[in-house]
Parts: sequence; C-alpha cells; structure tokens
Amino acid sequence: MTEINYQLLKEVIHSRPLESHKGNYGRVLTIGGNLNFGGAIIMSSSAAVHAGAGLVTCATYRENLSALHTIVPEAMFVDLANDQQITAALEQADVIVIGPGLGESSAAEKIFKKTLTQLQSRQFLIIDGSALTILSHHQNWFKRFAKQKIILTPHQMEWQRVSQIPIKKQTDTRNLAVQQELQATVVLKKFGTTIYHLNRTIAHLNVGGPYMATGGMGDTLTGIIAAFLGQFHQTTYETVVDAAVYTHSALAQKLSATNYVVLPSQIIKNLPNFMLSASLV
Amino acid sequence: MTEINYQLLKEVIHSRPLESHKGNYGRVLTIGGNLNFGGAIIMSSSAAVHAGAGLVTCATYRENLSALHTIVPEAMFVDLANDQQITAALEQADVIVIGPGLGESSAAEKIFKKTLTQLQSRQFLIIDGSALTILSHHQNWFKRFAKQKIILTPHQMEWQRVSQIPIKKQTDTRNLAVQQELQATVVLKKFGTTIYHLNRTIAHLNVGGPYMATGGMGDTLTGIIAAFLGQFHQTTYETVVDAAVYTHSALAQKLSATNYVVLPSQIIKNLPNFMLSASLV
Amino acid sequence: MTEINYQLLKEVIHSRPLESHKGNYGRVLTIGGNLNFGGAIIMSSSAAVHAGAGLVTCATYRENLSALHTIVPEAMFVDLANDQQITAALEQADVIVIGPGLGESSAAEKIFKKTLTQLQSRQFLIIDGSALTILSHHQNWFKRFAKQKIILTPHQMEWQRVSQIPIKKQTDTRNLAVQQELQATVVLKKFGTTIYHLNRTIAHLNVGGPYMATGGMGDTLTGIIAAFLGQFHQTTYETVVDAAVYTHSALAQKLSATNYVVLPSQIIKNLPNFMLSASLV
Amino acid sequence: MTEINYQLLKEVIHSRPLESHKGNYGRVLTIGGNLNFGGAIIMSSSAAVHAGAGLVTCATYRENLSALHTIVPEAMFVDLANDQQITAALEQADVIVIGPGLGESSAAEKIFKKTLTQLQSRQFLIIDGSALTILSHHQNWFKRFAKQKIILTPHQMEWQRVSQIPIKKQTDTRNLAVQQELQATVVLKKFGTTIYHLNRTIAHLNVGGPYMATGGMGDTLTGIIAAFLGQFHQTTYETVVDAAVYTHSALAQKLSATNYVVLPSQIIKNLPNFMLSASLV
Repeated sequence: MTEINYQLLKEVIHSRPLESHKGNYGRVLTIGGNLNFGGAIIMSSSAAVHAGAGLVTCATYRENLSALHTIVPEAMFVDLANDQQITAALEQADVIVIGPGLGESSAAEKIFKKTLTQLQSRQFLIIDGSALTILSHHQNWFKRFAKQKIILTPHQMEWQRVSQIPIKKQTDTRNLAVQQELQATVVLKKFGTTIYHLNRTIAHLNVGGPYMATGGMGDTLTGIIAAFLGQFHQTTYETVVDAAVYTHSALAQKLSATNYVVLPSQIIKNLPNFMLSASLV
Repeated sequence: MTEINYQLLKEVIHSRPLESHKGNYGRVLTIGGNLNFGGAIIMSSSAAVHAGAGLVTCATYRENLSALHTIVPEAMFVDLANDQQITAALEQADVIVIGPGLGESSAAEKIFKKTLTQLQSRQFLIIDGSALTILSHHQNWFKRFAKQKIILTPHQMEWQRVSQIPIKKQTDTRNLAVQQELQATVVLKKFGTTIYHLNRTIAHLNVGGPYMATGGMGDTLTGIIAAFLGQFHQTTYETVVDAAVYTHSALAQKLSATNYVVLPSQIIKNLPNFMLSASLV
Repeated sequence: MTEINYQLLKEVIHSRPLESHKGNYGRVLTIGGNLNFGGAIIMSSSAAVHAGAGLVTCATYRENLSALHTIVPEAMFVDLANDQQITAALEQADVIVIGPGLGESSAAEKIFKKTLTQLQSRQFLIIDGSALTILSHHQNWFKRFAKQKIILTPHQMEWQRVSQIPIKKQTDTRNLAVQQELQATVVLKKFGTTIYHLNRTIAHLNVGGPYMATGGMGDTLTGIIAAFLGQFHQTTYETVVDAAVYTHSALAQKLSATNYVVLPSQIIKNLPNFMLSASLV
Repeated sequence: MTEINYQLLKEVIHSRPLESHKGNYGRVLTIGGNLNFGGAIIMSSSAAVHAGAGLVTCATYRENLSALHTIVPEAMFVDLANDQQITAALEQADVIVIGPGLGESSAAEKIFKKTLTQLQSRQFLIIDGSALTILSHHQNWFKRFAKQKIILTPHQMEWQRVSQIPIKKQTDTRNLAVQQELQATVVLKKFGTTIYHLNRTIAHLNVGGPYMATGGMGDTLTGIIAAFLGQFHQTTYETVVDAAVYTHSALAQKLSATNYVVLPSQIIKNLPNFMLSASLV
C-alpha cells in the first residue's frame, strides 16, 4: 500500500502543450439528476468543468436545465428522456460519469444498462451513487466490466451492497479480492479513502477530514476524476485516478483552515487555483 | 435568566470526530415555500447546508426547484404536492423545519397536520412563520406537543397569536407560563431575543441589532437551528438551540461592521467561516 | 438650485433605532418585468433589498420567478396575472415602483391604471421605464397625481414624451413649469441628473458618469429610491429622494475607480457597504 | 503581418465622453442557444454586457430564459420562436452575433437566413459556432456578404469547412485568398490566433494559451467583439476587432497566473476591471 502525496499532483497536473485545443482535454458526459437529486449531477458537471475538462455535457432531466446553465453555463445539456440524444452523447464521450442523483427507477436502470452496453474500450466509466445501488441488484452486469476502464466510487455502505462484504469486515485483503473479481478500479470513500487498482496496487489517502461529511461531496469527486482522466495521459490511469482523489481531499483540507464545513460548491470554485498551485510545486 | 455568550459557541461547535460521515451530522427536512414565498424555504435550506447539516432535503413546490438547486445544489428536493414522497421524507428526517414561506392555505394546514401526526420522539421539529399562524388557529394541535422536541420561533406578533399574550404584556413570567403549558421551546425573536426552555431556564441574547430587520432573517435562523440540532449532541439540546440563535445574531453583528443592512444571503455565506472561528476561540 | 453632496447621505442614512423590526423599514412593491424584460424588475427588487427595505415583493410574471428567487431570495413574489393578489399587494405596500420592464401592452396599461386608482395618500409611487411611456399616452391620468406622493424617473427622451418638451429645450425653467403642473417629483436622468421637487426646489447631481451608460441602471435606481423612502422618515421626502439618487451615482463613481463600465449588479451588491460608509462619515 | 500589442488597447478603449447615454454604446443582439447549448448564448450575452455594450438583447428559446436573467439580468430576452419579435430586434440592432449554441436544425438555418436577408449596411454581423457550419452548407449565402460588415470567428476545423482549406494547408497566403473572396473579416482561432481583414492586413496574437482550451471560450469572444464594435468608433473597425480579440486572450493570460484552466465565466467577470486597466496604461 502506498500513501498518495502532494508530489504526485505535480507529476500528473503538467503544463499543457501550447498547441492544443479543447478536444485534447476530454469530452466528459455526466449522467444523473432525477427530479429529486438534480443538484448532484450539476455539481459533478461543474467540478468537471472547473477541473479542466475540455467539454462537458450533462445528461439530466429538463427540470434541472435552468440550474445547470446558471451554475455552469460552460456545460452542455442532453435530455435524459431523449434516447437518440443519449445514444449520440454516449458514442462521443471520452469519459462518462453515471449515478449522481440518478435514482433507482426503472428508467434509471435502463439508462445505466444502455451505458454499459454501448461502452467502448477507449472510454472511462465512473460509477457512483444510485448507479452503485442499481449495480448491486444486477450482479450479472459485472461481466460487462471485463476489458473496460471502469471506476467505482462507493462509500462503505455502497461497497457493502456491491461487494457483499459487511462494513466491519472490509479489510484491504477482502476488498482487493472482490475488486479484482469485478475488474474495476474501486475508490472506497471513508476516513482514509483507499483506492484498489486493477494492477493490484493499493493507494491510500492521508488528507481530508470530517469537514467533508456533507451532501454532494461524492458527486463532486466524480467530476474531478472525470476531468483528470479526460486530460492527463502522460502517466498510467491508476496514477491519474489517485491524483484526482487526492486533489479533492487536499483542497478540502486546505479550505478547512477557514471553514468549519467545506461545501462542494466551495471546492469546485477553488479547483482552477488549487490545480495551478499543485502543478508549480 | 442567563446571557448567552460567545464562549458557549466553543462548547457546542466542537471538533468533529475523524471517523464520521454525513449521516452523523443530521438529516434535515425543510418544509415550506409556496408560489409567493419560495425564497424563504430556500434560505432556510441553504442556511442548514452552510451551518453543517449532513444532508438537507427541501420539501417545496416545483416552481421553486430551479432557484433551490441554483442557490444550494447541495440540497435535495421533495415535491410538496407528492404525498408519498413527503411521508418518506418525514419518516427519515432527524430535524424538521416547517413554516418558512409555507402560506396558510388548506394544503399548508394539511401538510402541517401530517407533520405533527407523523412526528417521532427522536425528531426535532422547528415551527416558524406561516406554520405559527396556522397553529394559532388550531389550539387543539398543541396537545400533540407532549413529549416531543418542538421549537417555536415566533416574532412578537406571532407569539401574540400563539400565546394570546398581547405584545405589550409579553413579560418573561407570562411568556414562560404559556410556554410551559405548550411544552415547546420558544425562541421569541425581538430586540434582545429570549429563549424559553422546557427546563424553565430562560436564555437571553445580547448580540444582534436593527441591521437584521429585513425579510428572510427568521427563515435563515430556522436552518441554523436545524443544522445545529442535527450535528451537535454532546450537550443538552437547550444549549444547542442557544448556540444556534447566538451564532445567527453574532454573525450578523460581525457583518454589520461593514454593512448597513445585513442580508440573510450574506449571513448564510459566512457561516462556515464564522463557525470555525467560534470553535477555535 | 442646490448641489447634492456626500454630507447629505450622513443626514439621511442614520443609525437605526435598536427597537425596531422589518415592518419599520418599509414594504416595497415592485411591478414590472414582462417576458422580454424580466431582468429589469429583478434588479429593481434586488436594489430595494440591498438598500435596506424591510420587505420587498416583486409583482411580475411566472416566467421570471426562478431568476427572481435565485438573484434575491429575500424578495417575495406576486403573480402579475393574478388580479386578486395584485389588489392585496397594492393595498399593503408603503412604496410602489411601477414600470421597469413592464412593457406597453394593454395588460401593462391595465395594471398601471389599477395602481393609480388604488393609490393611497400614505403611499409613495415611483414611475419608471415603460410606465412613463404609457403615461405619455394617457394625459388624463395625470389628474390622479394631485395630493399623491409620486416620483417620475425619466431619462431625457422619456421626459420629452411625458412633458412634451423636446430634449434640446429641456431647461430648468421649462422642466420646472411642467413638473409643477404634473404635481410629481421628477428625477431627470442625464449627465448631471436634476431633481425637481414639489416645493419648487431643484437639486443637482455632480457625481456619476458615462460608466453608468448601460442597461438596467435606471431600474436599479428605482429600487434604491423605494428602499430609502420606505425606511428614512426623519427628514422631508425631498431630502430622501435626493439622497437615494446621490447614493446610486456616488457608488457607481466609486466603483468606476476599478471598472471601465459599472454594472447594475455590481452597484446592488455594494449598497450595504456603501450605505454604512456614508452613514459613518 | 502585425503583432497586436497591449498598447493597442489604450488606443481603442478610450475614456467615454461625459455627455453620453447607453444608446451611444451599441445595441447588441445575440442569437443562439437551443435546448442543448443554452449556456453558449448566455455567455456571449454576458460577455457583451461586461465588455460595455449599451444594451444587450439575447434571442434564444424560452428554456434558457431563467438562466439568462439569473446570470445577467442586465440583458433583455427575445423569444427565438417569435418571428415578429426577431424581425424587430434585427431591425434595431447595431451589432448582431449569430451562432453560439444555435445548432444546425432547419429552424436555425431559417433564422440565420433571415438575419442575412435583413442585414443592413450600418450593422455588424459576427458569425460563430453552429452558424459557421450552416454557412459551409450554403455557399451561395456568401454572395450576401458583399458590402456588409461581417466577422467570422472560426476555429481551424470550422475554417476548413467554410474555406475548404484543410487544416494542415491553412497558411496565411491561402487563408487570405479565400477570406478576400468571402468579403468578411476572419478571426481564425488557434494557437497564435490570426485575423484577416478586408483591407488585406493580417493581425497576429501573441497572448493566450492552452488554459483557454475549454468549452464556451469562443462564445465569450463573440460577446466581447460585439461590445467593442458597438461602443468604440474612433478608429477603424479593423483596429476595434483586433483590440477585442486581444482583450479576450490577454485577460485569460492574466488570469492564468492564478488558475490552471481559465473559465469563460471568470473572464467575463473580470472584463470591466481589465478594460479599465488597459485604458489607463
């Protein structure tokens, strides 16, 4: 097990080549946000934009359109009820986030299944929130994970549902065993978040804290991971995922010096400045 | 009668335990916001998020959805017209706020009655604004208060309606007598806000001022009280309510050093920083 | 003719009495904002809130509800299409603003006529924008101005329409003559804004500049005048209007030290701080 | 070929004459924003407002109304589905932007054709985004460009579509040849953005960088160009276009000193301050 440290950020968040354009920094597609949880997918989308993704499209319901455009006019919109638009958006994306605020309706299951079915080997898929719960009800869907680049971002209870390992028994050994079977990267969010990679390495986080225990924190993380995977290609994607997760918590820790609770919106706003600082260390 | 002082904040706003998650900091449900007064419940919800509540759900009408998600994407939404969703949300909450911008329609009465009927002894219920007026029309509802943890936050005119004590006769002795009958904590908002507790103690506020005399100020207070009750459990809930009310006015007073009028939105934005400062005194 | 100066602000923007509540600082009703010009009435409402009005209600169409609540959740909403609600709102207001973004439809004419008909002698009415143009088409409406407290805020072209004095002939003498006939205060917005009072005094502004030549600037002024009239009662209302107009331009001038163009939103945001500074001179 | 430099900004961004009003600073009309790309036209509109345009009207669909008014209440709205309103808005504008987020539907083609047909020789027309793609499908529309003041703002792929010159063969000589045939100013956005003027001069940009490679950057540029053309008349319009393009990238470069990625919203917000600094050099 290795500790991720600040030095890793400098390695991953490199200077951009002068001759480049938004197409070089990843097309991110975020899928989620039902009538009750629209804020979740908006925060994921906004985090992706602020973390440097080239182009971000948010697939959600019309009810969330105004808030999406107001919070982050840089993001585009696809109507989650429009099958044809979803098909095209899935086709074009480099990185897909599914789950924040998606809910567990049959419509949600359907869009998730469609996403898995259409998934291309060149694409990254980050599975979070409601999508993890849906996944736990469809164990046969895991067989689609083989040879794909899939990242699960469960908290402990979601991991229990997915892995069938009760929280109290979630040791690195047991977690790694199931994770390897699943053939997905697992970012297990907890006090001391741990990342289980496909190459069997385990990365551990020593930053972050209880000022992050607030709704929307995980949604924000998905956007950061997506943006990082979309734009940073010099190193292995294991390293990039580690750097994204570290950025999220290290920035929260920095903000906790002046805030009792660190809100996702605050983290998102400070990403461009934090990433620059990290790249200049 | 005791004066609440800044030192109390340090006692209540303690360092969070390292191993904790958003579930430890309270599920707050805010109920209100009709077509005319949507801003009220949004400010209550946003105050709850910024004051550190773990999870905040706002039950309001669809017309207020976009503004809610834009102002505070961290909050979730429940449709106030959807009885089934309301039942579930009431069931799960740790702290409920009812009243900001709710209005006094028969639909408002119905949702309030449902809230009282479903109320569990483990839950806190904060009653504000329109809900206080509704309450004054249904004196028989008070009998449901017995053995519940209920906080009323009237200004003087609302307290007159509820208590039948004319403003000019609202002395501590009379207020306490009625408050004890009602079996609810009463936060009487005025110049020198006074809190009447179930244990017969009376707490008095010597901070705040007329820069707070602006619409939405009371709505904001409800969110702060809710967040504090949701997350601080080391001391009695009397102490926690005192600290929440003090935080609201002390922060306003601090902001009045640079603002002629202190707007609720300004207070809300500064809560995370103020709470940290208070916890470090 | 007198020059308004900064010292006047200190006279008007006094310390608030400790024992006071939002009801003491004025109920402002803003009427306007059709489908095309919703931003105008939102800026007027937000300016009123930020300038210290106790309670602000915005009567506009439903299409503008989300933006209103997002920009200024402290303001309440009344549906301009709901005659009954408008009647009640007109009845309760202390200060009414009509015109920003109202348009010149027959519905706009109807609501304006209703406002004039219902107007009470204790109320102030500020007439701006589209409402001035409507007024110029209904010269017989002026007879309703007698013994009312009415403030017109035309720019030069609007004043030409209302007064029938061509811009080039708008001298103080001619302006005053017509203004006295109309029996309304006239704030004539131009380079060197001039205010014609019912008592025949003329006040002149020597602050402000071309950085204010941007859409929404006049809408913002209406909100400031309304808030000042709602809360400041120690001096004559002539003095209060002068102070409001001066505040608007003096604050713009201050912001022009760091901005090539000063946007209304920027002025609004800085009102609470500017008013405090002015009161402490 | 000349390098644009900071000194040019001082030449163009002059002090405003004291006696002037919003009508002197240009009526800008922005046309775009379908259901999927609403943020694009909102950013264009907001950039125009912040860059000093006197009056900005955004012609888009109703779905984008709330976000437009919330982000920039200073802008007015015209319903893109309302042919009569569009006709009037086109008639009155001094500068028109068409394309950001417009899409390529037949409705989009129709509105674009209408714009070209109604175009007056006193007006500027900036063609961007989707409108460039539409243009590439209608080569016969170019004949309408003669004796009009048209500015195209393609990135390299869009220029390939319009000019039929493959990206790799886009040399100044070839670009200029086609541009002269088209009779339009061409702002070719790339690493080292180059501007081809009707008078055959070529201006080259040596500011900006890959921190600008993010969605919405080009939309923002259109608003800045429009505002500059609307308000600055002392020099040739070639000079004004150069200054607008330079402002966009030079401000981004300034912000890149503290941000890894510079978001369009950040550029927009800082325009009033940057323009003042440039005018004072």
